[in-house]
This record gives sequence, C-alpha cells and structure tokens, in this order.
Amino acid sequence: MNRRAVVLLSGGMDSAVCLHAAHAEGLELYPISFRYGQRHQQELEAAKAVVDTLPVARWLILDLPLDQIGGSALTDPNLIPCKSGPGDTIPATYVPARNTIFLALALGWAETLNASEIFIGVNAVDYSGYPDCRPAFVEAFTRLANLATRAGVSEHPFTVRAPLQTLSKAEIIRLGVQLGVDFSLTRSCYDPTPDDLACGSCDACRLRLAGFQAAGLADPIRYAQA
Amino acid sequence: MNRRAVVLLSGGMDSAVCLHAAHAEGLELYPISFRYGQRHQQELEAAKAVVDTLPVARWLILDLPLDQIGGSALTDPNLIPCKSGPGDTIPATYVPARNTIFLALALGWAETLNASEIFIGVNAVDYSGYPDCRPAFVEAFTRLANLATRAGVSEHPFTVRAPLQTLSKAEIIRLGVQLGVDFSLTRSCYDPTPDDLACGSCDACRLRLAGFQAAGLADPIRYAQA
Repeated sequence: MNRRAVVLLSGGMDSAVCLHAAHAEGLELYPISFRYGQRHQQELEAAKAVVDTLPVARWLILDLPLDQIGGSALTDPNLIPCKSGPGDTIPATYVPARNTIFLALALGWAETLNASEIFIGVNAVDYSGYPDCRPAFVEAFTRLANLATRAGVSEHPFTVRAPLQTLSKAEIIRLGVQLGVDFSLTRSCYDPTPDDLACGSCDACRLRLAGFQAAGLADPIRYAQA
Repeated sequence: MNRRAVVLLSGGMDSAVCLHAAHAEGLELYPISFRYGQRHQQELEAAKAVVDTLPVARWLILDLPLDQIGGSALTDPNLIPCKSGPGDTIPATYVPARNTIFLALALGWAETLNASEIFIGVNAVDYSGYPDCRPAFVEAFTRLANLATRAGVSEHPFTVRAPLQTLSKAEIIRLGVQLGVDFSLTRSCYDPTPDDLACGSCDACRLRLAGFQAAGLADPIRYAQA
C-alpha cells in the first residue's frame, strides 16, 4: 500500500502545487477542502477542477460554520476585504485561527486514514502576513499533532509538510509548471466578480500577479482590470 | 469590562464544573458546544440546562460534521461504544483529534471576542486514556495558540486553562458541589436509552459512578441499571 497524504486544498495556486508535490512523491492523495462561509465560493469549483487532473483516492469537503465565529472580511458580509498592499500588519482578510482549525480537521481525518503526512501550502516569503503561515506555527502544530493523537502516541509520528514554506511566489509558480500544474484552473482572488473574473487589486491578486511577472510567465486566468 | 473566557461545554460533569470555575473567577462567560454527529445528542440538552443556571454572555453551538471523518464509536453508527473498563489502551470512543479540533474552533472565537482565556475540562487522573487529555497536550496547544493568532502575536497571550487537570473524579465532584454545580443537569453516558437513562456500564458511566462513590455522594441522575 502506498503511503497516504492528506492535503489541504483551497482552489488557490499554492495548495494546487502542494497536491502535485505530494503526487510526485508517489503518495496516495486525500485532499480536504472546506466550505466555511468564504466570500469566494469559486474556490471550491477551482479545487474540483484541480482534483479532476490527478488520481485522487478520496476528496473530502467539510462544512464549517466559521462565519458564526466572525472576525474576518473573508466570511463577514459587513467587512470589506482590504485593497491595500501587503504590509507588516495583519490584514482584515485574516480568518481567526483558520489554519489551526483546518489542520486540526485534517489531522482527525489523517488519523482515521492512517495517513502520516499532512500537506499545507503555507509560505512565509510572499505572503499576506498571517501569523499561521510561519515556520514556527507549522513546527508547533506538528508537535501538537503527535501529542494529540492515538497514531502519534502509539504508531508512526505525523509529519506536517509545508513544501512551499521558503519559496517565493515566483519559485512556487516555476515549481508548479515543472510538476504539471494547470494554473488556469486555480483561483486566488478574495473578491471575484459574479462571472468569475479576479479583481486584480486584492492582496491575493497582487501577490499572484507579481509572482507570475517575477517568474516571467503570463497568468492564464482572467482579470476584471488589466 | 470583565475579562472574557471561552469555555468548552459538552453537557458532561467536567465541563459544567469548568464553566462554574470560570464564573467563580468573575470572568465573562462564552461557552461553546458542538453538534458533531455524536450518538449522545442528549449532551446538548444538558449543556443548555447548565447554561441556563449561569449569567452567560453568549452560547455558541457549532455544527461540525466529524462523522464524515469517521474513526470513532461515538460518531460511527457501525461501531459500538466499548463496555470494557478503562485500561491502558485507547478506547473505541476516542474521536480522532477531537480536543484539537474543539480547541482550534474555541481559539478562533476567542480571538474574535478578544478573550484571552480558554477553559477545557480535561483531566488525566480518572480518565478514559485519550491522548488529548494529558497536560503535555494542553501545554502544546497553548504554545500553538500564541503562534497561530493575531492576538497571540501582537497583544496579550492566550492561556488554555485546564483547572481539573490534576483532580480525581471525586475531587472534581467535590469542587463542583462547592461551586454550586447542579449535577442532576449533567449527562455523561456514551449510550443513553431513548428516554435519557444512563446505561451505567460504558466507560463514562463507570468513571462517573466511581467518582460519586469515592466522594461519598449519590449521583442524582437516573440509570437504566442500578
């Protein structure tokens, strides 16, 4: 039996590259996605398109009422995603404890599946300044995972893999091209138009566009503004 | 403004004592409960009864499809909760990564509320042998919480409080009596009868009954078998 990997999959570029990276290692793929009240529901359609390009063992979509917790422009209809560039403050699109919550659920599924690897597409180079994207966070979660679970206690330990951690956006895009990722299927925008055009000005769009530019490639998705 | 505490509340004895302990410290109470496909849905009715006895600022119930993750006798209709006594193996009622998942969601809410304390009723003396009840788990989560969040990074740190951690079941019951907990409202059984009688033989019932006996008190709830 192949080793199994649970892969957090959002529909964005980074997690698509992550899923391909796990596939390239010969791991059996168990992507997990969340319907969490996010503004950008197109995410899940993009995730489906990415899943369809790979031999996935099972794709799990969990409903998660994070909008009841509130506190983020991504899930609260009364807050507007910020249009300012990434800076050294944490932006309004930060969802409280989101990666902790997603990894905790991925951990539960991984334990059930007897999968010892969990992939997450965080990176701390060209990122939005969220605290739960930093290497120290990934290390702390790995430690927790092995204290929290039956598998961690009695069998082989869990590893949380963040293969994009130290890569720039341009390097992630180049790695994706090398692994065969079809970036036209991925979506990054926090605030897309109803007919699925990326806004071109939110933090996620800016990072994506700058990454393609630095990689010397054209972004294959469509934008509302050039 | 009073300090705020998010308190994991299940409807069992331990979390009821925890909620009262937070109240006794003068904290503003934000209990959080989960509808997670558990067999013992009476839990949430018990949680409501406990909430009604205290000045709670807001009670949040989150729907969480843990049954889709599987792997536990508590959520899987094809598995039967074990009737053996607690031993040194982890029982079938263990829900993969449950406390990690619950704490992660509590953390998200706490960050939104600007609450810096999270209470959890775990104890590692008279317990069922779940790995995510041990002090090392609670410490690892606290460390993670402060790396994972905006509040942990930029403001006052989070504290995960486990006031029952080193108490025996009898000591928890005595503390509860002292704090005014009405134990007749609480429910512990993993497999209650349809008319809400505790089975008397699952791990949770055994621990509860032994605790009352050791405390020299009568358990005020009704059992299917004496």
